[in-house]
Amino acid sequence: MNPRAVNKTVTIALSRVLRTPTLRPATALHPPHARAMASKPPFKQEPHKLLVIPGPIEVADDVLYANAHPSMSHVSPEFVPVFGDCIRMLREVLYTTTGQPFLIAGSGTLGWDQVAANLVEPGENALVLNSGYFGDSFADCLATYGANVDQVKAEVGGAVSQLKIEAALTVKKYKVITLTHVDTSTGVLSDAKAVAETVRRVSPDTLVILDAVCSVASEEIRQEEWGIDVVLSATQKGLGTPPGLSVLVASQRALQIFKSRKSPVTSYYASWQKWLPIMQAYEEGQAKYFATPPVNLMYAFQQSLAHITKGTPSLEQRFQLHRDASRHFKKTVSDLGFKQVPLDPKFAANGMTALYFPDGLTASDILPRLVEKNIVVAGGLHAAIREKYFRIGHMGLSVVDKERGDVEKILKALKETLAEAKASKSA
Amino acid sequence: MNPRAVNKTVTIALSRVLRTPTLRPATALHPPHARAMASKPPFKQEPHKLLVIPGPIEVADDVLYANAHPSMSHVSPEFVPVFGDCIRMLREVLYTTTGQPFLIAGSGTLGWDQVAANLVEPGENALVLNSGYFGDSFADCLATYGANVDQVKAEVGGAVSQLKIEAALTVKKYKVITLTHVDTSTGVLSDAKAVAETVRRVSPDTLVILDAVCSVASEEIRQEEWGIDVVLSATQKGLGTPPGLSVLVASQRALQIFKSRKSPVTSYYASWQKWLPIMQAYEEGQAKYFATPPVNLMYAFQQSLAHITKGTPSLEQRFQLHRDASRHFKKTVSDLGFKQVPLDPKFAANGMTALYFPDGLTASDILPRLVEKNIVVAGGLHAAIREKYFRIGHMGLSVVDKERGDVEKILKALKETLAEAKASKSA
Repeated sequence: MNPRAVNKTVTIALSRVLRTPTLRPATALHPPHARAMASKPPFKQEPHKLLVIPGPIEVADDVLYANAHPSMSHVSPEFVPVFGDCIRMLREVLYTTTGQPFLIAGSGTLGWDQVAANLVEPGENALVLNSGYFGDSFADCLATYGANVDQVKAEVGGAVSQLKIEAALTVKKYKVITLTHVDTSTGVLSDAKAVAETVRRVSPDTLVILDAVCSVASEEIRQEEWGIDVVLSATQKGLGTPPGLSVLVASQRALQIFKSRKSPVTSYYASWQKWLPIMQAYEEGQAKYFATPPVNLMYAFQQSLAHITKGTPSLEQRFQLHRDASRHFKKTVSDLGFKQVPLDPKFAANGMTALYFPDGLTASDILPRLVEKNIVVAGGLHAAIREKYFRIGHMGLSVVDKERGDVEKILKALKETLAEAKASKSA
Repeated sequence: MNPRAVNKTVTIALSRVLRTPTLRPATALHPPHARAMASKPPFKQEPHKLLVIPGPIEVADDVLYANAHPSMSHVSPEFVPVFGDCIRMLREVLYTTTGQPFLIAGSGTLGWDQVAANLVEPGENALVLNSGYFGDSFADCLATYGANVDQVKAEVGGAVSQLKIEAALTVKKYKVITLTHVDTSTGVLSDAKAVAETVRRVSPDTLVILDAVCSVASEEIRQEEWGIDVVLSATQKGLGTPPGLSVLVASQRALQIFKSRKSPVTSYYASWQKWLPIMQAYEEGQAKYFATPPVNLMYAFQQSLAHITKGTPSLEQRFQLHRDASRHFKKTVSDLGFKQVPLDPKFAANGMTALYFPDGLTASDILPRLVEKNIVVAGGLHAAIREKYFRIGHMGLSVVDKERGDVEKILKALKETLAEAKASKSA
């Protein structure tokens, strides 16, 4: 399909649901409901502790309201364009006009199965760049489907260097290379653009697979320009929607490799053979059935994607806001005496921070005190350092909607917590 | 775990969330929110067309409100018991005290992958009892994972007879036999109890797999007493929750077979090896991570399961209400001149009705007129008769909450529609 045709479809479909360039709460979606809403106050979620783990993240009121949409048929003329909008807007988030989105009920993990079952045939080689917990798991998944998996492991807090990648690609021919864009277990941000460049130069046939579960919409990804063959993600992090949807975009090159595979696909639920006609049908405005999509969640995803791609700030501003918030956050916690897990600030994620507990303090000194202050952060996940560090998300709504003051709330609570913990130890 | 311990845990966990034997709207859940809600009117979903396809079905206001729950950490002490409650209440719905539930983000289809990847090893035999579209698909899924699949196909509108099942089981040894409890494509209800009895008598080692996507909570299933090894379902039909969760309960016998398999599990996302420790941990009140659960949907599912297992009507009354509504519905439409797809009323589902269009009328005469009357029904799905029939759900809220008057609304609209269509033809 030519890009202009795609853009026209986007415009037409969105004109049905969006009335102003700056998105308003739920009323902007679903015109019939907008009328009903006019006389009532907009939906407000219940008061709750501030959730700043590296996903799920805080979700906007209107997105939650869309998740409470009345039941709709998955093949109804009302729902079909919602699905189509999600497909089209997801392309915008990843700066691709030709990528093929797959939106399937499931968690982010299902994206690994999609890659392993559709793009790698049993006995083929896969190279996993490992910058933490999620590299181990992706390798496990690839092996489950019969791939011969090699790993290049970075030290804890590091990313795999281009030199090591080049060396590995020179020794053996790989069908796919996978990297975790932001490894949520360490807060390490890998340089996806540089990795893709290296692969294109050294082993041009190798497909580049980006696990971007914790980076889509909080870190810049230019899928087409950088030559990334698969971006896989989930809804509950930078995409600002509740969890429950596996989000994946495959390049046309990846689709061609898939279509020319010699052995049958070894999964049913994760099979692109089943899902590709569904995605194409919904995008063209036709319903087609393989398995029931998570209808309510798709309404929520549509609403959040509309904020991200059509709202204020723009997508580029959104990335800048994440970079700014991250820099401010990391500087402030460094000044408080916290050391970060990433060894080099260049390789630190912009949507989260992984921090070692200061000497003499442990999780039980810090995390419960933050909870008392209504701030929910995450404990350690990487096996080698699990008890020694914790993780804080600053992603999506919490950095984009500055009026919320979330980042300052977290920093204030962290400062007070640290003082209390130290006082308690010396007492 | 002994059943009394399980029951005690249920009581303790639920006592935290349920205040009265008869459930009230969302305020009954999540005590902190109950206080906040006291001063505001309860959540009401937007006005919408009545959705009476055989799933997704109409969802109660408080269940949708739970789906709009503020973001929560999937490992938080608030969320862990919600997951545990869902596991425990699901057992109650299926009358099993020892079954092992698996609740995984995905559609009902993922249940087939779970069966095919965990219980059948490549090269083993599977027998599919086919009463419509979903039998074909389950067979396709089993073959994808390497099973040798035989099918016994019923004629359109029929269920496979016990004699044919016995004959098939006598000829060959099968690892699993699968049947679709209610095949949504035909509205045929298979006699799960009788099938399980036949299998136990003729081929006692064969695992009985019940595809109950369109029957859990609308048709009686006594998993333990009947000896069903796997019941697989989804949330969006009788369970009265939005779609997005694969719901499966495995018998201890099935789990033993799984644990003694010789070849590795051939799926990652659908692997019970990955999920079993997660389900056990959440039930015991501990968080454990494999893949992020669909947190909001679990809150919604907890709320709907609480209605079904703790509310009024009781579970047994609920089944009776479905039988009564179905009898009334089927008699009325027969009187109007509609013929049903199921060949024998004994094999007709209680949660839905599949109807042939009367002579001379087609889908375009009936379905758009129903939509004009704000009633959304489903078209045909079974390839052999697709253009000749349509399907109406009468399930969950639409039959349990009589004050809604849904069944009468559908019947009235159907009667008017038929008169209009006939008048239009003769004009």
